[in-house]
Amino acid sequence: MTGDIDTGARHTGDMDPEAYRQAARRVADWTADYLRDIEDFPVLSQAAPGSVRRGLPGSPPEQGEPIDAVLADIDALLVPATTHWQSPGFMAYFASTGSAPGILGETIAAAFNVNAMLWRTAPAATELEQVTLDWLRQMVGLPRPLFGVINDTASSSTLYALAAAREAQTDLRIRELGMTGRPELPRLRYYASTEAHSSVEKAGIVLGAGRDGLRRIPVDERFRMDPVALRQAILEDMAAGIRPFAVVATAGTTSTTSVDPLPAIAALCEQHGLWLHVDAAYGGSAAIAPELRWVLEGAERADSIVINPHKWLFTPIDCSVLWTRRPDVLRDAFSIVPEYLTTTDGSEQDAPNLMDYGTSLGRRMRALKLWMVIRHFGTDALAQRIREHCEYASALARWVEAERDFELLAPAPLSVVCLRAHPPGLDDPGTLDSLNQRVVERINSAGRFFVSHTKLRGDYAIRVAFGNLRQDQRHVLGIIAALRGAIDDVG
Amino acid sequence: MTGDIDTGARHTGDMDPEAYRQAARRVADWTADYLRDIEDFPVLSQAAPGSVRRGLPGSPPEQGEPIDAVLADIDALLVPATTHWQSPGFMAYFASTGSAPGILGETIAAAFNVNAMLWRTAPAATELEQVTLDWLRQMVGLPRPLFGVINDTASSSTLYALAAAREAQTDLRIRELGMTGRPELPRLRYYASTEAHSSVEKAGIVLGAGRDGLRRIPVDERFRMDPVALRQAILEDMAAGIRPFAVVATAGTTSTTSVDPLPAIAALCEQHGLWLHVDAAYGGSAAIAPELRWVLEGAERADSIVINPHKWLFTPIDCSVLWTRRPDVLRDAFSIVPEYLTTTDGSEQDAPNLMDYGTSLGRRMRALKLWMVIRHFGTDALAQRIREHCEYASALARWVEAERDFELLAPAPLSVVCLRAHPPGLDDPGTLDSLNQRVVERINSAGRFFVSHTKLRGDYAIRVAFGNLRQDQRHVLGIIAALRGAIDDVG
Repeated sequence: MTGDIDTGARHTGDMDPEAYRQAARRVADWTADYLRDIEDFPVLSQAAPGSVRRGLPGSPPEQGEPIDAVLADIDALLVPATTHWQSPGFMAYFASTGSAPGILGETIAAAFNVNAMLWRTAPAATELEQVTLDWLRQMVGLPRPLFGVINDTASSSTLYALAAAREAQTDLRIRELGMTGRPELPRLRYYASTEAHSSVEKAGIVLGAGRDGLRRIPVDERFRMDPVALRQAILEDMAAGIRPFAVVATAGTTSTTSVDPLPAIAALCEQHGLWLHVDAAYGGSAAIAPELRWVLEGAERADSIVINPHKWLFTPIDCSVLWTRRPDVLRDAFSIVPEYLTTTDGSEQDAPNLMDYGTSLGRRMRALKLWMVIRHFGTDALAQRIREHCEYASALARWVEAERDFELLAPAPLSVVCLRAHPPGLDDPGTLDSLNQRVVERINSAGRFFVSHTKLRGDYAIRVAFGNLRQDQRHVLGIIAALRGAIDDVG
Repeated sequence: MTGDIDTGARHTGDMDPEAYRQAARRVADWTADYLRDIEDFPVLSQAAPGSVRRGLPGSPPEQGEPIDAVLADIDALLVPATTHWQSPGFMAYFASTGSAPGILGETIAAAFNVNAMLWRTAPAATELEQVTLDWLRQMVGLPRPLFGVINDTASSSTLYALAAAREAQTDLRIRELGMTGRPELPRLRYYASTEAHSSVEKAGIVLGAGRDGLRRIPVDERFRMDPVALRQAILEDMAAGIRPFAVVATAGTTSTTSVDPLPAIAALCEQHGLWLHVDAAYGGSAAIAPELRWVLEGAERADSIVINPHKWLFTPIDCSVLWTRRPDVLRDAFSIVPEYLTTTDGSEQDAPNLMDYGTSLGRRMRALKLWMVIRHFGTDALAQRIREHCEYASALARWVEAERDFELLAPAPLSVVCLRAHPPGLDDPGTLDSLNQRVVERINSAGRFFVSHTKLRGDYAIRVAFGNLRQDQRHVLGIIAALRGAIDDVG
């Protein structure tokens, strides 16, 4: 019956195991060289749009090529067009560093290549995820029970949390009946501060709450959500027949790393039966240092919390942890089990099927890298690095305050400093904005540092974010010199 | 100003570059050993629920541990609790193989560790994604223009596609105003066959269409959507004041790999202005072999198409390609650009910001592994492997048809065979189901193969899926012997 199949040697087109071994060692060396030389590259890529596209053939090769040819193109084409997130000069957005154990974890995860959709398809990945997230829970000082899953990004985690919040409005029967063509349904509303991340708004669009479904709450002078304004907004909406269903509080906002007053917000959520989601994607990691644990004070009362180890815990992107105290609701929002995925394994307690807690059915073994980071560093070293990043920010902030030509535009409670050049006598807003834009362009084009910007109360602000694993005092002194030099050059 | 910071040596807690080099080589060897020995492991993990959890400490270590200790735990605890998707004995669900160039690509991507949210934060990753997806477009024979992005999974790709379909109903203004509390909005409806994947239903729940928003269309005797029934459903719904907005057709369904009649469905969608999304997550890769290009016939008329290279193109999970002919609509459904992410780089054409085309702001460099797979294999070898997998399935199907004690339960047009044991005279449905369940358990517990099941017309079906990169004729003969042996043992 099968006699017409070639019985000869394997001819898969792939490397045989020994060829793979040699290639993998070469790639190991390539990555080691890259990380060793990381400060030799301009941090922000200086490549022109289209340089990679134009450098590659327009069509795929019919015949396979040796791995050396591929590595040569990576060196010649991709490295020059890369913005080097691994560089300690990367001070834009939020840091994201792939540490050594994290990179090794990704390599091993790719070799396993399991799909952790069901416990049975990846028992080790599933259980390791549970163990590792319980370790992380202890590290940031949150009480059990707390059910966790790892998603790709905080955008997904927040989307899933708000989907659960919507599902928690069980009387609306949205899962079954949908949201339109049902005149009996009230308008839905959720709340976040004017400083909350764009993903909060995006989630509401996806979930059918609409941009109008998000009500932005004003912040105080330190960019923290005003709970009095929140309370008033909730009451106003309820009086207007609108149904409030969730609040997203932020522990470490994207612009200034301000931390919303979680206890006051939690109290309001409890009073009105609203789902509280805490976006601690960046800030949550700070709680690993005991003296910074205040960042998550009140988060123990949240229904869900997101922390991204790929931001400030030296774990390669993507690794976003979503915890919830109400896993049943999260599962109700997502679980659909077709026949081809039914299993009879173990108890749900010991063998959860993690596909049931989000959109994505397929799931990589993301826990491995995080587990390897925690094991190889240990909690003391992780806390120490976070502490030092905050010290770097404090040092920069003190320098800014002492400098005549610069000013702070926001408090710097964690590892990010918002500042601007403001030479005495130069007070026209447009002129100041344009000056600071030139300062940023000057710094970024010089290659040693990459900083980003934001707007605070309408003003252009330079944003310097520490948090790269490989930063030390040289980089603090370096960015200070770069700021000083830039204003001298362009001012 | 910064005098209070330690000016001493780096003390990040991470390995120094040379220590990393040695560890990376060890991990390279570890992965080479794992792949060399892959057939020594039972394919389906035989570990009991909780074995990994109980084997690990309840708390994280305070002090860091050497990488050797971590690797030892991976060997002792994780490998035995792993279901080995890399094994050629893996014949459950759909195959997902991490080939050598794919694993190397993941390693390099983790070393780069870029976040490709904006062109400027990762020009190489952004452009490589565009180039690679244009190569893949040519490989499967789809006409340009076709804009593509790589997502984690087909569940996400289909969610994004249906979000765009909803957005295409511009008069409803759902993005701005949401879906509830608006009595003027009609009920929304989308269509997929009874064989469509569960992610199609899940996407509708997330998007507020509800389970009720999905109307399942019956299939013909070969499990293909019936376009006459589809047409009738659309007309019925329109007559009832319901707003149809999308059809999801499947090219390679999950149970039987049936291929819906795309041209007839496309014609209906064009006639009624519905968004056509083609779920070719599994089947699309087949089109790389010219004689299998019929699988995507009609897909050139679709608004969006998903193909998962992590399924049948030997690229490590996760790598799901979403193409659309209407990128502006997809972007309208998702784009929100806050100040801190505004850029002034290049033209949109040359420098797209890929965060604008889906939920996730953060994006790994997923294109690298796919690009390395295509380069290292070449298109001829990839087509040949896919062709051979289909030949294996044909060979098994022919054996089943010739065997007295087995029967085919569906055509096997691609690399999957649905069959069952059906000894002459044994016709009670319950008895047959239970017999076949025992056959599956017998095969899976023996360790050499892992097969899964589905239900077809109410009957329990054994599902044998070829598609693992490392399969050859030994495995075809092996699964035949295992089926034969299992029925002899448990029958």
